[in-house]
Formats: sequence, C-alpha cells, structure tokens
Amino acid sequence: MTSSQDAAFMARALKLAQNGLYTTDPNPHVGCVLVKHGEIIAEGWTQRAGYAHAEVDALSRADDARGATAYVTLEPCSHQGKTGPCTEALIAAGVSRVVAAMQDPNPLVSGRGLQQLAAAGIEVVCGVLQSEAENLNRGFFKRMSQGLPWIRSKLAMSLDGRTAMASGESQWITSPQSRQDVQRWRAASSAVLTGIDTVLADDPSLSARVDFDVVQPVKVVLDSRLRMPPAARMLQDAAEVWIVTSSSDSVKRQRLLDAGCKVFQVEAQGGRTDLHQVCRLLAERQINTVWVEAGATLNAALLNSGLVDEWFIYMAPCILGDSGRGLFRLPQLQRLQDKKQLYLAEARQVGPDLRLQYRPQAISD
Amino acid sequence: MTSSQDAAFMARALKLAQNGLYTTDPNPHVGCVLVKHGEIIAEGWTQRAGYAHAEVDALSRADDARGATAYVTLEPCSHQGKTGPCTEALIAAGVSRVVAAMQDPNPLVSGRGLQQLAAAGIEVVCGVLQSEAENLNRGFFKRMSQGLPWIRSKLAMSLDGRTAMASGESQWITSPQSRQDVQRWRAASSAVLTGIDTVLADDPSLSARVDFDVVQPVKVVLDSRLRMPPAARMLQDAAEVWIVTSSSDSVKRQRLLDAGCKVFQVEAQGGRTDLHQVCRLLAERQINTVWVEAGATLNAALLNSGLVDEWFIYMAPCILGDSGRGLFRLPQLQRLQDKKQLYLAEARQVGPDLRLQYRPQAISD
Repeated sequence: MTSSQDAAFMARALKLAQNGLYTTDPNPHVGCVLVKHGEIIAEGWTQRAGYAHAEVDALSRADDARGATAYVTLEPCSHQGKTGPCTEALIAAGVSRVVAAMQDPNPLVSGRGLQQLAAAGIEVVCGVLQSEAENLNRGFFKRMSQGLPWIRSKLAMSLDGRTAMASGESQWITSPQSRQDVQRWRAASSAVLTGIDTVLADDPSLSARVDFDVVQPVKVVLDSRLRMPPAARMLQDAAEVWIVTSSSDSVKRQRLLDAGCKVFQVEAQGGRTDLHQVCRLLAERQINTVWVEAGATLNAALLNSGLVDEWFIYMAPCILGDSGRGLFRLPQLQRLQDKKQLYLAEARQVGPDLRLQYRPQAISD
Repeated sequence: MTSSQDAAFMARALKLAQNGLYTTDPNPHVGCVLVKHGEIIAEGWTQRAGYAHAEVDALSRADDARGATAYVTLEPCSHQGKTGPCTEALIAAGVSRVVAAMQDPNPLVSGRGLQQLAAAGIEVVCGVLQSEAENLNRGFFKRMSQGLPWIRSKLAMSLDGRTAMASGESQWITSPQSRQDVQRWRAASSAVLTGIDTVLADDPSLSARVDFDVVQPVKVVLDSRLRMPPAARMLQDAAEVWIVTSSSDSVKRQRLLDAGCKVFQVEAQGGRTDLHQVCRLLAERQINTVWVEAGATLNAALLNSGLVDEWFIYMAPCILGDSGRGLFRLPQLQRLQDKKQLYLAEARQVGPDLRLQYRPQAISD
C-alpha cells in the first residue's frame, strides 16, 4: 500500500540523501528513514564510499527497529561490496516493511535486493517518488545503464552570446554569485573536464573552491598531442589529474607521469581525442558525472557528438558586441535548417545573471 | 483614509484600464470604478482618443452616483480637451470621495484636477497602487515629463546569440508563440520603428497582425539617404508610414509623399539620422511608445545613445554557431571594462523560447 504518508517519508529520505551530494562518489547518494507507529525513529545516509550505506547508518541509530518501515531512496544492496549487504542488515534488524524509491540499475543488484527482502517475509513497495530519486543520481544511473557518465557543459556569456573579447579577455563576464554556483557544481561532479587549449590559454586550477567537505573532482584534460605543461596550475594541489591523449610519445608521457598525472590513451578522430572513447573510459573508471569547462572548439565537438546531457549557460546582463568570441565554433553550420535544436529545462536567476539549463531534444525529463 | 479595500478597488480599475491598451493612443489608458456602500455600482475605461474618459464612461453607467467613491487610475483631468473636464462631471454627479492612483504628469493637469475636487468638498486620496499605474502608461508619462517616447527594442536570437546565419537567413529562429507575442507588443505600441537596411533586406510589413481591435501603430523608417522603395510592402496597407531622413533630395522626397508616406527631416550625425532628434520628433507628434525591430547596426547606435528603455530579447533554444550574425555591431568595443551593462528586469517562457527584458542600469523600477 502506497500512501501520501509514504511519499512524505520518502521525501525526507531524499533530503537526507542530498547530504552526500559532495562526498559519496563513485557511490550513489542514498538516504534512509526508519518509521515506527507513524514516527521517525532514526535517519541515515551514505556519507562516503567505504562507509556504511544509508540503511546501515540509520539502523545503527535506532534503539529497536523491529516492526519498523524502512524508507530508502534506492533498492537496498544484496551483495558484498566494501560494506556488507544492506538486505541482511534490514532482515536482521526485524524491519517489517521496506519502501524503495526505485530499483538499483546496478546489474549486481537490480531487483535482487527487493526479492531477498520479500523472501524473508518483509512487505516490499517500490516506485515511491521514483523520478525524484532518479534525478538525484543521474550520473550513477547513466553509468550503470549505458556505460557513460552524465555530462554537463558550462558556458558563461554576455547577453549577446559572447564568452570573451576578441583578445580572449574574459575575467570576469559573470557575477561572483554565478562563479560561486559553478564551484558548487564542480564540487558535486566526479570529474571536471577541459581541453588543452584552455589550459594553455588560462592555466586554470579547476579545483572546487567551496567551504564545505568535498571529495575533490578528478581533473581531466583532453590533450591529443601531450602539450600539457608539467608546471600547470591544476597540478599544484592534491586532486587527481588525468590526461587523455592520442599521442604515444613516451618522453612526454613520462614527464607528465613524473608530475603526478595519470595518462590514458584513446584513438584520435579528426586529429582530436575520440570523445566517445573518452567518455567510455571515464565511466569505466567510475566517473558518474562530468562538468565540462571548455572553449568553443571542444564545445562544438561535444555538441556534434551528442554526448552532453545538460548545457549550463550563465548569462550576464551585459553586452560585449559582435567582435567578441562565440560559444560554439561551427564554421560548417551555414543553413538555418541545420541549426542544433535543444530544449530549455530550467531558468533560474543567480545574482544579476541567469542560469539556463538546456538539454538535447531527444532526452525527456 | 487609505485601506486594503481602496487597493482592491484600484486594482479593479487598473484591470479596466488595460481594456484600452491597444486603442487609446495617444491618450493614456485609464480605468474607473464607482463604489457605494462597499459595492461596485459602475465601471468604465478610456476606449479611444476623442471618446469619453474613464470617469465619464463609468458615470454614464451609474443610476445614481451621489455619495459614491470614484477610483481612478490617473488624476481626473480639469481641462477641456476633445472631451469635457472629468472633474466637473464628478462634481456634478455628487461623488463624495475620489481615490486616484497618481497625479497626472501632463502639465495641463498635474494636481489641478485633485485641487478642484477638494475645493468642491470632495474627499481626495492620491497614491494608491501608484507604481502599478505608472507601469501602465510608461510611454505617456515619459513623453509628458521628458519629451521622449518610451522605447523598447526587440531582438530575436538563438541561445548562442545569433540573429541570423552569415547569409542573412533568419526566418524563423524563434517560435510561432514568440512571433505572436511580438505582434501583441507591436499592437500595444504607438509606433514600430526600423532602419532602411532592414526594409531593403527583408521588406517587412511591420503591421500588428492580431485578432482584436487595435489602432495600428505608425510605421517609422530611419532612412538618412531616402532609399525607401515606394513599392515597399509596409506601404501596402492603411497604417501611416513616416520616413525620417537627413536628406533634402526633393525628388526622392516627393516620390515618397506620392506613395503616401510622411517625410520628416532631422540632422545627420556620423552619416546617420540623429537618434535624439528622431525621438524628440516622435514625442512631439504624440508617439508614446516605440517598438524597434532593427538590425545590429541601428541597435548598436541605439545602445550607445542611451535612448532605449527596455530591450526585449526572444531567445530560442537552438544553436546557430559562431559564423552567425550578432545582436550589436560594436567593432570599437575591445576591452571587457568597456562592456555595456544592463540589468535583467523580467524573464518569461514564451512557448519553447525565453523572453528576457533588460533595462539600462540607470533606470530603477
């Protein structure tokens, strides 16, 4: 039996899951609420990979969970990972009912967790606030189901669509509030990705500069010819830096390994790293979500590849004029009928700017 | 005594005033509600120039207005215009209280109407929902106070800031819903203004194509050298066409007069018509609001002139690439510190597009 009470407790569990937004990577963000006689007796959430899962975290805080209902934002795991299976913990605690927001798309779980619980005589409900739960872990789910990360590309522009002056000068077009918002999105991502041209032009650090606990995203540079400078700013902190290249120059490679980078090789396509291979490589290495901060050439290649799930456009209320630089370098696009169609998923004011989220037409939300 | 009841009846009067949004030009849109014992006994609004003003319209529908309160969105007029003074009509009807949203900025009225009412023993209140009332007649008030029309410039672009392909192809970037919205804004304007380059390139009709009663806006073309073709599409209907030029070529001028245009001469500035002179000329000829639909050169000149009060940007969720045309032709703008700063006043979804309204930093709302 699903009820509005179930939805209310699941909403609370989803809220708790968000506590792990910046720290659970590569695991999903999961929340759990234990309810007895209509009252919450304990709450928990997944904090970091290797730590207790949400269910076990909540059970550890309950005096007596016998007869309780467990609300969990993702099907409890039934396999031994870094931690023991949650199904066993729930059965051992004497929980009488489990309400899950959705099945786990992880092929190691996918329905088996719920089956184990049902087999132990526990009443099982699945699908409460499912779309909200899916939204919370888009990257994890896409990686599990498609072997690709969820990719967001960020662009910052004036209201007349310019990302920089003709000279390249671009600091700063958008407001401090927008730049702070970008830091939070970096922090919520598994990886921040850019192209070597941006590194050579701007020497960015790409760290997530936030005032809360965060597992720093991996920094990924697409660098087909291994031009990455070993003294680049992004190598000056503890975060991992991955160079993805099509070059097999072992001298340059060794120099970057010595500087602390990991170097991965993929095939070239049109003189650049093959973006599909790059994305599969990242998913294989447990990257759920990628936050791209790149220039007009790489963004055009990403647009043409169809690999980007969300375009984040920060739009400042200023005008830079038509000699400024554009968002997408697409010289071959000459006829209106060949325009790239997206759709607007969200518009929000951030300080004086607008943050616009666009998605490919093909993906429905 | 001002009360929440006063505000509620004034809100109704403002709603009535909007009935004249497309027809009262060059007069302001005004609404009036007559209230007795807390009940509305009659309503009225200004419908067209030369017809009854809102107060007289409402009084004509009331059986007995003695002792009533009149709510009116603008100070009642005290002078003889095309119609008789409203103050006299209110006094003659025996109204005991008049609540006005604001004083009339028209120097022929400005406070005198309220004084006349007070002198006749009528209780007078002024300033209820004043900012809403100001918003309703921005053009009329700006013309009265500054001798300039309220200018809105409309731009339609892709999300990467392109108004057309490199070839000029631009039909259509935005959605049918946005184009319909543009028609309503044209209809609500005293004049639609464009540049001769747009006429020569696109041959637009510039009519307000709407399915309701409208006083068609005057069509204004800035045409410094009198290049206007006498066979242009915009000359094919009954709306007035005004050519503003810096040329004194009497042959060309006569040809346009023969085609039904009015031709006005202003000084040139940098080879183009002086925009300040153009705007003063339009205000002198009772143009309250101007809706600009122009290209990147005229929009850049307008931006530099500081004459535009609102920029309307219709932004379609598509990408045209960086060889497409920009919004503002500003080749001299090369340093970020010289950017033109606006501020976002409103963002609204129109079909799949966004309609963004920007204002100059200097004007507060």
